[in-house]
Amino acid sequence: MPEFSERDCLYMSQALRVALNGVYTASPNPCVGCIIVAENKVIGEGWHAAAGKAHAEINALKMAGDKAKGASAYVTLEPCSHEGRTGPCSKAFIKAGITSVITAMQDPFDEVSGKGIEEMRAAGIKVKVGLFEEEARKINRGYLSRIERNRPFVRLKVAASMDGATAMKSGESEWITGIEARRDVQKLRASSDAILTGVGTILDDNPLMNLRDTSYTDKQPLRIILDSYLRTPEDAKIFRSEGSTTIFCLEDKDRSKYNNKTVSIIKVAEKNKKVDLFAVLNSLANKGINNLLVEAGSNISGSFLDENLIDELVIYQSPHIMGSEIRTMFNTPKWKKLGDRQFLDIHDTRVVGKDIRITACPIIK
Amino acid sequence: MPEFSERDCLYMSQALRVALNGVYTASPNPCVGCIIVAENKVIGEGWHAAAGKAHAEINALKMAGDKAKGASAYVTLEPCSHEGRTGPCSKAFIKAGITSVITAMQDPFDEVSGKGIEEMRAAGIKVKVGLFEEEARKINRGYLSRIERNRPFVRLKVAASMDGATAMKSGESEWITGIEARRDVQKLRASSDAILTGVGTILDDNPLMNLRDTSYTDKQPLRIILDSYLRTPEDAKIFRSEGSTTIFCLEDKDRSKYNNKTVSIIKVAEKNKKVDLFAVLNSLANKGINNLLVEAGSNISGSFLDENLIDELVIYQSPHIMGSEIRTMFNTPKWKKLGDRQFLDIHDTRVVGKDIRITACPIIK
Repeated sequence: MPEFSERDCLYMSQALRVALNGVYTASPNPCVGCIIVAENKVIGEGWHAAAGKAHAEINALKMAGDKAKGASAYVTLEPCSHEGRTGPCSKAFIKAGITSVITAMQDPFDEVSGKGIEEMRAAGIKVKVGLFEEEARKINRGYLSRIERNRPFVRLKVAASMDGATAMKSGESEWITGIEARRDVQKLRASSDAILTGVGTILDDNPLMNLRDTSYTDKQPLRIILDSYLRTPEDAKIFRSEGSTTIFCLEDKDRSKYNNKTVSIIKVAEKNKKVDLFAVLNSLANKGINNLLVEAGSNISGSFLDENLIDELVIYQSPHIMGSEIRTMFNTPKWKKLGDRQFLDIHDTRVVGKDIRITACPIIK
Repeated sequence: MPEFSERDCLYMSQALRVALNGVYTASPNPCVGCIIVAENKVIGEGWHAAAGKAHAEINALKMAGDKAKGASAYVTLEPCSHEGRTGPCSKAFIKAGITSVITAMQDPFDEVSGKGIEEMRAAGIKVKVGLFEEEARKINRGYLSRIERNRPFVRLKVAASMDGATAMKSGESEWITGIEARRDVQKLRASSDAILTGVGTILDDNPLMNLRDTSYTDKQPLRIILDSYLRTPEDAKIFRSEGSTTIFCLEDKDRSKYNNKTVSIIKVAEKNKKVDLFAVLNSLANKGINNLLVEAGSNISGSFLDENLIDELVIYQSPHIMGSEIRTMFNTPKWKKLGDRQFLDIHDTRVVGKDIRITACPIIK
């Protein structure tokens, strides 16, 4: 385990901070930040803004210019070694005369995965790995989930009353949470590559499911509908908004009805008479989806919970009591005993307008 | 409306703060604080500790001694004028030569209610009323509820999972919240004169329902059981702990079975085939109960909610999800439409150990 100085910690913190500039735009690529330091002064700073644009290292080197010769670099992810869209960063460091590189973590992506580090070491650069790795992993949890687990990082959002109801038994519901919470959801959508819902929600609420607040990014998340028998109407509002839609189904004989829509129909394996969620997630990973937001009804939410597929849970609680004649957040017909319950690790609790937002992580059973 | 100076505000804040010293012990009397000031210096400070002990004003005068002559007094509640257990405070102010009195509010208690103020004015004391009245009312919300509405201030506590479940459908439950939340409940109990539950809870859980943390007060709250047909077993644990118990019933022919217990049986009016909650609250007010804590099951909690009898709601949410096969916090069979829901005004949200505590006030429909 290499040792790091206080200055190393300072510069890596800075690199992590600038990496976040790409949080709404870098996907499917990871967020990366780079700081170049000479004689205890920051001479270069860069981040990766979007696929196809320059990598963090290249932007930082550009800012540092000739002074990069003999300087040190701090990078939140291993510099790439492959000829991607923008050329390998390891070679750029070597060419610029960088003499020391500290990186927070190896890139698990097959075409890099240690090769960038090796190449730089072979060229005489002193390379240390692992400073603030946990923090570096956090900012790329979506990318890492896709690369390492072949599925997106799954965030599930649910809005309910203070006593856990999402609707009356009759199905009667409306915007339960306030304007501030709804704005907050726009931020969740902006940081997601795709939003998933079920055909039930489409039929009941006919939502647009788009990003309305484009101050974070112009990119519309992909819309995903789980719809075993293609019951989504051709004139559903979801097709009217910008961006494209993917429907996962079990039976696609009616697929032609969507012919003039921006929609893909994907037939997947069946599990318990429904689309296999795991297969859906694998398919989304293969499409380059790092972060998935589930905004669905009690049945789909319950299935994600029951199958341990939720990585993060965001609960908005509105200040009212709906009583006993209601629909619960999660439909879990198999959970009959107290022992079936799901424990949560709560990361954050805060007041958002008149509502309370709880961010939690299910603890693997 | 009289005007108050910054110094007046300062001294009244201080009086309010010292009044709180009696919060666990003063009941059935109100909490009162008194500050005596001469030449811009506090020369006396007093509060009311418990019924039968000296009033705040008398304690403050005692500390001030001879210097009270020509001084000003700040009292959080109108000084009493009646010969109670400790003699009238208005007369004590007159006798000590106090020349100016500021009180936060009139005492609504019939035997005082403006008479203390009148008497002091008649003796030449300059009296002003109404500084920080809202704050003064808050610290005596229980006392004021009993005097003004003839019922205690009702606080209802409920512990549930993050998705609003208090037990599985089967009734299976256990301590849902953590040790810190349970300690916090002891504080709620300590600041209550009585704790109310239903016979269902007695039969299911056989609780002690007592104050185990006696660091706040030695006084055990009165235990109240709603038990229409006296099904509470004679050997229930609730009879074993210190303090007394009152059972409200509809039918008392079996009352003799409790003959050698510290228990009173009170027969009350019927409402919807259950004991009339309003009649119970009136009866408790007549017993001198200022603050009632309801710790009951979903049926009784639901009735209190449905009948608009909850003044404050304290919800402990534990970090787990129990799903759909559960019992809700409030059984409200009549609430079929979204319009039936109860809106809350949230006063406080905080993390207590691993749980979240929400303190809210139902907004009158």
